Amino acid sequence: MSGTESSVPLASLAARDRYWRHLGIELVDAGEGHATVQMRVTGAHLNFNGSCHGGAIFSLADSAFGLASNSHGVVATAIDAHLSFNAPVQENELMIAQARERSRGRRIATYGVEVAREDGRLVSVFTGTVYIVGEAHIRL
Amino acid sequence: MSGTESSVPLASLAARDRYWRHLGIELVDAGEGHATVQMRVTGAHLNFNGSCHGGAIFSLADSAFGLASNSHGVVATAIDAHLSFNAPVQENELMIAQARERSRGRRIATYGVEVAREDGRLVSVFTGTVYIVGEAHIRL
Amino acid sequence: MSGTESSVPLASLAARDRYWRHLGIELVDAGEGHATVQMRVTGAHLNFNGSCHGGAIFSLADSAFGLASNSHGVVATAIDAHLSFNAPVQENELMIAQARERSRGRRIATYGVEVAREDGRLVSVFTGTVYIVGEAHIRL
Amino acid sequence: MSGTESSVPLASLAARDRYWRHLGIELVDAGEGHATVQMRVTGAHLNFNGSCHGGAIFSLADSAFGLASNSHGVVATAIDAHLSFNAPVQENELMIAQARERSRGRRIATYGVEVAREDGRLVSVFTGTVYIVGEAHIRL
Repeated sequence: MSGTESSVPLASLAARDRYWRHLGIELVDAGEGHATVQMRVTGAHLNFNGSCHGGAIFSLADSAFGLASNSHGVVATAIDAHLSFNAPVQENELMIAQARERSRGRRIATYGVEVAREDGRLVSVFTGTVYIVGEAHIRL
Repeated sequence: MSGTESSVPLASLAARDRYWRHLGIELVDAGEGHATVQMRVTGAHLNFNGSCHGGAIFSLADSAFGLASNSHGVVATAIDAHLSFNAPVQENELMIAQARERSRGRRIATYGVEVAREDGRLVSVFTGTVYIVGEAHIRL
Repeated sequence: MSGTESSVPLASLAARDRYWRHLGIELVDAGEGHATVQMRVTGAHLNFNGSCHGGAIFSLADSAFGLASNSHGVVATAIDAHLSFNAPVQENELMIAQARERSRGRRIATYGVEVAREDGRLVSVFTGTVYIVGEAHIRL
Repeated sequence: MSGTESSVPLASLAARDRYWRHLGIELVDAGEGHATVQMRVTGAHLNFNGSCHGGAIFSLADSAFGLASNSHGVVATAIDAHLSFNAPVQENELMIAQARERSRGRRIATYGVEVAREDGRLVSVFTGTVYIVGEAHIRL
């Protein structure tokens, strides 16, 4: 399901996220309970060893998680997250993060995100949990 | 112990990290097994709900972790990380992240990082693990 | 603060936990926002390599977490947990787990637990999050 | 692939694990890079609220993880683990944990485990990382 078919205009949520813009994170696809985003690694993402900073990898995964967990029309706030670092990513490589809902209760929901490089190599396995605040999104 | 007293010139490691510069992360203090960094939240760090993006909070914690885990003069690469999100952070607030070594074996080491706001409120509890590659840092 | 001084009779919560009994987990001390428990490793805790099973280490940490997070008189249920494994534990060794509250909001609270051997060596760093259901404990 | 077809006799690894026996964990199937185990919840697994203790859920997931990560014939030791708690489990219910390899390098490997109830409800999403020690298993 694409973002335009969802009950929440996820593309407009994504468009107003200034951190996404600052890092170059782009929406690929999103709908109820899932989201896919991507980011091309530039010089601005490199750590002191010259490869992509773990914070940039997390930021991409967390952005897919944030969109998927807010896709049902009510505000959800992150409680915690865990990720593994499985492969380094170099400048100019594209990373793609796919989030999908694993479990959603009345107040708590869990999402899994896989981050991969364009060549298919797994970069990170991410798990995030949200608390569902229960207020409708404003100004969507 | 300040960075200049350490066996590794941590200030120069920090200075060549382009991701730190892109996010506005600054070194406060670092030495063997510990590091403190800070970041003031600007408009560029805000998510679609108007508060600081979780990715920016993680990036700050991960930067303290990366510096502390590389403070002994040999390269260490992150294996995985977990963090909790305990309080939101708003534009213009300053966040401070303090990393300290919890355990260091021959190949594996664990670090804890606490992120707090300037008013002392706990923002995040972070735990990160590294694999110690064992090569000396080049061009330090 | 000891368990008997707390607003919740934590010793009686502990006493009715059958899993504690099955594993040999014992209450050392507990009060509002904290708990200390211990367990001596027996043959029943050993994995296929002959050292203490990670599940037994987690179970001890999780028990301290469960008691500390339920110490305020209302039911709290675990949402997620992360732990590191920093040192092996052998048969006959005593492990001590100390949980303390790191952050507690209206609905979400975070606890840190350190597990150490009797010789002081750090065994595990554990972080756990709960959802505060908000019902009083029954039959305490 | 069943355990008997694997290069490591995983059934014999499982059979000599005393903690599995103590908790009632049973091998369902295992082979290179994967393992499935199960456990029926008894009175001995119950926490002070009368449902299955989180430590017992973790122990099941960790046992699948341990077998899958040791399935290639060399010793691997757990570095860290994260799990979510998505649904409670009651006495007499059967839990099934399925571990599969997500990434395996020369020294570090990551495994995902899903724990479900017999009715298919997701109980826990688990991620575990190991350090590959590199010694062959003895007395397999």
